[in-house]
Amino acid sequence: MSLHAPITFSFASTDVGRARLGRILTPHGGIDTPQFMPVGTQATVKALTPGDLRSAGAQMILGNTYHLNLRPTAERIDRLGGLHRFMSWDGPILTDSGGFQVFSLAHLRRVDNDGATFTSHLDGSTHRLTPERAMEIQALLGSDIAMALDQLVDPGLPREQIVEAMERTHRWAERSLEARGRPDQAVFGIIQGGVNPSLRRASATTISALPFDGIAIGGLSVGESKAEMAATLDVVSEALGSDARPRYLMGVGSPVDFFAAVERGIDLFDCVLPTRVARTGQVWTDAGRLNLRNSAVQDDPGPIDPACACEACTNHSRAYLAHLFRAQELLAYRLASVHNVTWTLELMRRVRAALADGSFSDLHQRVLTAFVRSSTSD
Amino acid sequence: MSLHAPITFSFASTDVGRARLGRILTPHGGIDTPQFMPVGTQATVKALTPGDLRSAGAQMILGNTYHLNLRPTAERIDRLGGLHRFMSWDGPILTDSGGFQVFSLAHLRRVDNDGATFTSHLDGSTHRLTPERAMEIQALLGSDIAMALDQLVDPGLPREQIVEAMERTHRWAERSLEARGRPDQAVFGIIQGGVNPSLRRASATTISALPFDGIAIGGLSVGESKAEMAATLDVVSEALGSDARPRYLMGVGSPVDFFAAVERGIDLFDCVLPTRVARTGQVWTDAGRLNLRNSAVQDDPGPIDPACACEACTNHSRAYLAHLFRAQELLAYRLASVHNVTWTLELMRRVRAALADGSFSDLHQRVLTAFVRSSTSD
Repeated sequence: MSLHAPITFSFASTDVGRARLGRILTPHGGIDTPQFMPVGTQATVKALTPGDLRSAGAQMILGNTYHLNLRPTAERIDRLGGLHRFMSWDGPILTDSGGFQVFSLAHLRRVDNDGATFTSHLDGSTHRLTPERAMEIQALLGSDIAMALDQLVDPGLPREQIVEAMERTHRWAERSLEARGRPDQAVFGIIQGGVNPSLRRASATTISALPFDGIAIGGLSVGESKAEMAATLDVVSEALGSDARPRYLMGVGSPVDFFAAVERGIDLFDCVLPTRVARTGQVWTDAGRLNLRNSAVQDDPGPIDPACACEACTNHSRAYLAHLFRAQELLAYRLASVHNVTWTLELMRRVRAALADGSFSDLHQRVLTAFVRSSTSD
Repeated sequence: MSLHAPITFSFASTDVGRARLGRILTPHGGIDTPQFMPVGTQATVKALTPGDLRSAGAQMILGNTYHLNLRPTAERIDRLGGLHRFMSWDGPILTDSGGFQVFSLAHLRRVDNDGATFTSHLDGSTHRLTPERAMEIQALLGSDIAMALDQLVDPGLPREQIVEAMERTHRWAERSLEARGRPDQAVFGIIQGGVNPSLRRASATTISALPFDGIAIGGLSVGESKAEMAATLDVVSEALGSDARPRYLMGVGSPVDFFAAVERGIDLFDCVLPTRVARTGQVWTDAGRLNLRNSAVQDDPGPIDPACACEACTNHSRAYLAHLFRAQELLAYRLASVHNVTWTLELMRRVRAALADGSFSDLHQRVLTAFVRSSTSD
């Protein structure tokens, strides 16, 4: 790495498959890997303050180019001192490029070779997102790590369409690198190719040949099976070989999925799942999933998870949380989110410890057993 | 006071009208008066944790008999160790008797001489509230101060109806005292009588003749003018004379109203206003009201109130709050509520300091000027 690289990193191999233990240093601080990034789509991890995130052990969070550019706009955030200052988070931030919204808001956009045109879900106005504009927005936001614009597609589409989106992603990757705007911002490229092994291999080879600061795997956790995700990660990690750069699996964040990905060499994760399911009353514990809306919880004086040190588990009973959810009190969404984010980050800390001390497969088995059991009893 | 009284108190007169400075000691700690109680209707001050309330300087909070008995029910809270443990608030709690809901939920209840029958706003089931049941519920909740069941009415009703409700309130006051269930719980009686001076005088005389631990003034801040409220408080405070017990003005909590009431001898206040208006984006500051939804706020890098030490003012800009409100993010409601509760409790602390050092009328004038000016510029 150059001394002037925006980020530096080092990863050590472990005795668990391709799993690595590492550290990434960004302009706003360090990240121990494997690491999970809570998602702050609109410049807030829903219901939580920066103080809550620090208490939960968060090291890096994610913001969204598409949403932030529609509101309050990248230019406004820039005038107000950048995204870190705007949301009062002084730790590392990674910004997504808007590529996921090209996929998820398919009914609101038109894609061509140059970029994508969106109809705003807020006011119907038209917005153009190109690789160059995505980089410009992220430069204005001032994130530590920017993502190249990509096009992900449903892996069930015909091969020609997967290929077309993948090749467009490759051209956009080069344009994103050419458009990089600031020396203090790393840029990650994104591998696509659906769940087709040869396309994924080709994409991994193409993207990793470019001078990105890190490599992301996109287009997974969008409907494929767990076996397809694992097979795709195998193909990609084999293709990347000894590539020294950080590897980021986008949009993955269920407790069980972490293990399969860590074994296949993934260093970074992000997902809205911990906060999204929390707002529906579903909390994650060492005993698996718990639905705080279940009737029996109304009389349970114990904490969500006796092993958890979060504010919800330290101060409040399941019975109280059950009441708050039934009464639709704002505090319900906050406390359940505090818990799930804390629990998820603590799980990643335990994953790192288990990689270090040789107990990874024990931890994997315990989490798998707990979550499989609670799925069937929900 | 007897050594075994549930609460003890002492009040010192000041050189500001009938204003008093005092302290009330309850089984869960002391309260400096004049004091404001944030309202936790459903066992939560909306969006805030007990830790937030402590940071905001809250000494006593309020819970609601009517709401808590419908959900999660008084019996369930009792089984779970009482309201303090249920909501993890170890400071003093005052519970309202349900009398206000007899008034505000008029379309859902029938009143007779024995009590009121409600149709639940949650599931249409029928619930009976009598003075005895209101005391039983409050004994189960285990609040430090319970309120007698009263009947308040629109002060614009014909005199006969005001008289009828007042006399019923007096009979219910006696029955409430007879039904008091626990030695560690104080009971306050409630003066009614609309805005009719002779009725208010009669009610003050009747209620204060009963062995309550404190005296509340109900039926104000329900549509009468500020002049009518002040005149009514004059009549009541004159009728109470040198009565040594705490005086609680129910449902009052606008910054300007505090001053008129403190001058007339009021020690305690409660109101949902600070949190309710916060959730609409209205925050209170030393410069008056500010609407965080105003367009100009979107580019304002300063805090809500530079003099405020709350979490919102310490960490976040008006521009960020403006964004959170526009994006309908849960954090908006939380941060604005943290601010308004903190600012209101700090205002009461300044009121106490001003009573002590002779600057009360200066403070009154500053707050009045700020809030009158911001009302017209909103």
